[in-house]
Amino acid sequence: MAQKPSIPKGTRDFSPAEVAKRNYIISVMRDHFEKFGYQPIETPSFENSDTLMGKYGDEGDRLIFKILNSGDYLDGVSAEDLQIKNYKQLTPKISEKALRYDLTVPFARYVVQHQSEIEFPFKRYQIQPVWRADRPQKGRFREFYQCDADVVGSTSLWQEVELVQLYDSVFTALGLEGVIIKINNRKILSGIAEVIGASNKLIDFTVALDKLDKIGVEAVKKEMLEKGISEGALEKVQPLFHFTGTIHEKIAKLSTLLSASEEGKEGIRELQFICDNIAKLGLKKSILDLDVTLARGLNYYTGAIFEVAPPATVAMGSIGGGGRYDDLTGIFGLKNMSGVGISFGLDRIYLVLEELNLFPQTVTIATKVLFLNFGESQTFEVMKAITLLRNQNIKAEMYPDNAKIDKQFKHAERRGIPFVVKEILGSSFILKDIQTGEQMQLNITELIHKLSD
Amino acid sequence: MAQKPSIPKGTRDFSPAEVAKRNYIISVMRDHFEKFGYQPIETPSFENSDTLMGKYGDEGDRLIFKILNSGDYLDGVSAEDLQIKNYKQLTPKISEKALRYDLTVPFARYVVQHQSEIEFPFKRYQIQPVWRADRPQKGRFREFYQCDADVVGSTSLWQEVELVQLYDSVFTALGLEGVIIKINNRKILSGIAEVIGASNKLIDFTVALDKLDKIGVEAVKKEMLEKGISEGALEKVQPLFHFTGTIHEKIAKLSTLLSASEEGKEGIRELQFICDNIAKLGLKKSILDLDVTLARGLNYYTGAIFEVAPPATVAMGSIGGGGRYDDLTGIFGLKNMSGVGISFGLDRIYLVLEELNLFPQTVTIATKVLFLNFGESQTFEVMKAITLLRNQNIKAEMYPDNAKIDKQFKHAERRGIPFVVKEILGSSFILKDIQTGEQMQLNITELIHKLSD
Repeated sequence: MAQKPSIPKGTRDFSPAEVAKRNYIISVMRDHFEKFGYQPIETPSFENSDTLMGKYGDEGDRLIFKILNSGDYLDGVSAEDLQIKNYKQLTPKISEKALRYDLTVPFARYVVQHQSEIEFPFKRYQIQPVWRADRPQKGRFREFYQCDADVVGSTSLWQEVELVQLYDSVFTALGLEGVIIKINNRKILSGIAEVIGASNKLIDFTVALDKLDKIGVEAVKKEMLEKGISEGALEKVQPLFHFTGTIHEKIAKLSTLLSASEEGKEGIRELQFICDNIAKLGLKKSILDLDVTLARGLNYYTGAIFEVAPPATVAMGSIGGGGRYDDLTGIFGLKNMSGVGISFGLDRIYLVLEELNLFPQTVTIATKVLFLNFGESQTFEVMKAITLLRNQNIKAEMYPDNAKIDKQFKHAERRGIPFVVKEILGSSFILKDIQTGEQMQLNITELIHKLSD
Repeated sequence: MAQKPSIPKGTRDFSPAEVAKRNYIISVMRDHFEKFGYQPIETPSFENSDTLMGKYGDEGDRLIFKILNSGDYLDGVSAEDLQIKNYKQLTPKISEKALRYDLTVPFARYVVQHQSEIEFPFKRYQIQPVWRADRPQKGRFREFYQCDADVVGSTSLWQEVELVQLYDSVFTALGLEGVIIKINNRKILSGIAEVIGASNKLIDFTVALDKLDKIGVEAVKKEMLEKGISEGALEKVQPLFHFTGTIHEKIAKLSTLLSASEEGKEGIRELQFICDNIAKLGLKKSILDLDVTLARGLNYYTGAIFEVAPPATVAMGSIGGGGRYDDLTGIFGLKNMSGVGISFGLDRIYLVLEELNLFPQTVTIATKVLFLNFGESQTFEVMKAITLLRNQNIKAEMYPDNAKIDKQFKHAERRGIPFVVKEILGSSFILKDIQTGEQMQLNITELIHKLSD
């Protein structure tokens, strides 16, 4: 009996129009990554399990897709192992490989494994799918692309400056205006933790502070007190509750606030370097802003932290993020390799461009001209003309079967093919513009000219 | 303790140079696929197991990578199921998803699932990785790309003609001369089977016949007799042992040979249509040849069969193949959908281009110019210039750290960066051509001009 076809939940088929739009975004990213000196690498879809396990916390371990060993995977498993029915214990015995969960750990593994071939500092980009056994929901998939650019082997803050420029360049090229590149620094967060006198309350503090716009100062303070942050601490960080102004005004406020914290001051120095240079070099269409509530990747980022918000008119979460991590490759035995990188959220960028109608119309126009099929007596002449057009890089097709002319016209319309050759008269072609209805009689040279971009 | 990093056997990391070369081949294929009217689709990396299992024979089932269910996959498994230790029985209970094994079955599934959205005939291409738990060996990997172009929903033989042209176009664009596109037809093979009087001996017959060049007529006949093909049968197919001449001479010989087989004659008619039209339309750099020993995909191909051999100077197996299958989507419940398609072997094409030194030199040149780092006092001026260059689409970088000049020059050389800005004097730049050693003093406009392609 025939199966009713379906795909696993959280995965997607991409139609020609969707692939074309996704490839458009990817090709813009690729162009700009390379303009900035980032080089592409690719790593295998699955890694040895011990490369991945334990790198993303318990939750991550749970969400990693494991691949069953091939052949008789039960061969070396004892009856006892099976009897206790403990899947966590059984897994490593029947599975040694797992699907890539992100691009950062495979990159770290790549750098260590190929360190003798790599010329450092190494600026690499990587655009590949990753897989997570997350509960699928709107905008969250079990298979999705990550698009990462990282530099490893340099502590220069110019890397951070460049990464801000790179974000701006890509989003500008995609036609997006007013993207907000938010920046913070792990050391500033440490400084704030010092000031509030409780580093274990830092996340509670930033989570509450992030709600300022929504719930107001009093409600935020109330939440902080409930979380066990003291009245005295709130007093000390008072300026953060009215943290407005230009990025330089904000930095000035922070300098006062964190004057007693060496680490905080170092964070401010780093931030100032990046912001000053970006201000002098200028951004095209994006806005750089300081956001002290930005605490993503608190466990691994050690310096700058980035997060990118779409233009204010679009209600959507972050479309990118990144930061500096001082010990990227330590887990694989290569110490003192500082890295800094950013990621682009392909799926969300796609939705933003769709919402703002920013995909160029030409992106989804595949075939330029369809030659109707008038029956076997003419097909050879048609294919001869099509061969000539293709040799001139014109995307041309013949309707393959001798169907009703009406059906053939509909095919062109449904496919979004803008021109149809509806008749051949001796050595001329009757070309119809589907949109305007205009008809022209052209010889082959004129036809090539008309259809060339 | 630090792990010694490695990747699973049969998988590969790709370095920047390798990715650049692979992407070059893929982009040539993509351009030509689209020029011929094929549209891209993408399907998920994993499918529901029942979409894949049973579609590739027992051997295929064994080689499909299965994904362990997430969470407590032992939860619904009975103690008995575990005790008998039969992995084949256990697999479907602990794994419902599997990695894509080829692109054809997912394509068939896609067509059936999306039939109401698809405008037929549907010309699709798909370039994605597939996974097979094969024993890895030279040139055979557990993860590799397939690059397929198929048409579904048309029985027109013009599709076959176009696919021959498509092969020729891609290989010509890649600079390959003398690629041999071998063609055969399932119906001709059936005709031969009729003539030798034993369709179950067909594979034995073609395998032996394929050795003609290597071992000579007598040895081939000996092998056929040993396989149980009768003396009388060999007498009847005598012309196949001296099967030389032009493609049209070969067709003429076949016509006589298969005159008693209706199916054989139909195969010859199809072959003749394709060969005649290709002869009249002309190929650019490839050769079309008839090879009656070509029996690939005997189980599913129903009409034309293709296989592509690299130029005679390169000792390597086929670099592509394909054919027509009359019931592509039947397994998923959609009857009467004829399909015909071809596949390109990315890995082997890569090796052929490498061997013949056909990759354009520019493919692996990523960054055009490296600005040396002369210390913090000048870095801003450098980044200002670099920003201007990048805005003109010139791939430019600054060496991020203030290292010894010698080390910085070596970085440019090792990365294959052709130009270095070694000094800034007021508003001029001292540009050095790494290859020739030539030095120029240029202002920013001249620098942009010099570095633009």
